[in-house]
Amino acid sequence: MINTGEGKGKTTAALGLMLRAWGHGMRVCMFQLLKDGRGDYGEYRAAEKIGMEIHPLGDGCQWDWKDEITAQAVNLAAWERIKTTIANGDYDLIILDEFTFLIKFGWLDADEVSQWIVNNKPQDLHLLITGRDAPQPLIDVADLVTSMEATKHPFHIQGTKAQKGIEY
Amino acid sequence: MINTGEGKGKTTAALGLMLRAWGHGMRVCMFQLLKDGRGDYGEYRAAEKIGMEIHPLGDGCQWDWKDEITAQAVNLAAWERIKTTIANGDYDLIILDEFTFLIKFGWLDADEVSQWIVNNKPQDLHLLITGRDAPQPLIDVADLVTSMEATKHPFHIQGTKAQKGIEY
Repeated sequence: MINTGEGKGKTTAALGLMLRAWGHGMRVCMFQLLKDGRGDYGEYRAAEKIGMEIHPLGDGCQWDWKDEITAQAVNLAAWERIKTTIANGDYDLIILDEFTFLIKFGWLDADEVSQWIVNNKPQDLHLLITGRDAPQPLIDVADLVTSMEATKHPFHIQGTKAQKGIEY
Repeated sequence: MINTGEGKGKTTAALGLMLRAWGHGMRVCMFQLLKDGRGDYGEYRAAEKIGMEIHPLGDGCQWDWKDEITAQAVNLAAWERIKTTIANGDYDLIILDEFTFLIKFGWLDADEVSQWIVNNKPQDLHLLITGRDAPQPLIDVADLVTSMEATKHPFHIQGTKAQKGIEY
């Protein structure tokens, strides 16, 4: 599954899916690329409260990077860890949040990643990838692709700041 | 806020938003129109586990209705209850799931509903409405409208049945 598009709701919908699967007693886990887990995010608080796994494995926002080499190394190390977890079959649902950026930034090859998933994802594992600009090879091997498009956005129309409990 | 569009993820993203706000200790509540709460839904199980309020106030799926008169009466009674809750200001986030259908079915007038919200919603209350075909008057008074579009859907391309923990 892929949640893509320019609009809001990609990660939020992934959190909702996670909550739903968790409700059914499924083994769920979210790995976040790029994000480094700093900041007061409602999803981290909620996950901690109820014992749901969210692992921020990235190096922070692009505008926070010390340098791209470090960010690339951190995120590629995360992908190696994720591959092991996927192949191990210890989860029923794994979410790779903002994963498309590793391909967008040229750190990973879309064809290689797609092929790896096809060859290594356990059949029963639900895998959801979020992020803008999902590449075609990934879309080709997905069962469900949803595109979130902003029809009306407060950052554009009103200059509103990010709101606690809503955007984070 | 409005989550609309033909794609999946409208209710799921609402659940994610709810979890995030709940993580921040905000007072959150989801009212479901149409849905009657029957069935083994992961969101109901999760909500029960963690004490998050989801109230299914509808009369079930359209194809399950005994008759439209009853369904209309049940859903309009729900809207009256919801209006009281919104105006009371007891919550920080209220979600009206599948609410657009009450307008789509002609049971409520889009202009009247939009005007009611503008006049009665407490300023600090975050209100999220989900459902297909959000009417223009509702969009006009919204701060954020996201449209979920199915780029690739297993029901269309593969005839897959709804999967536990994913679709419900």
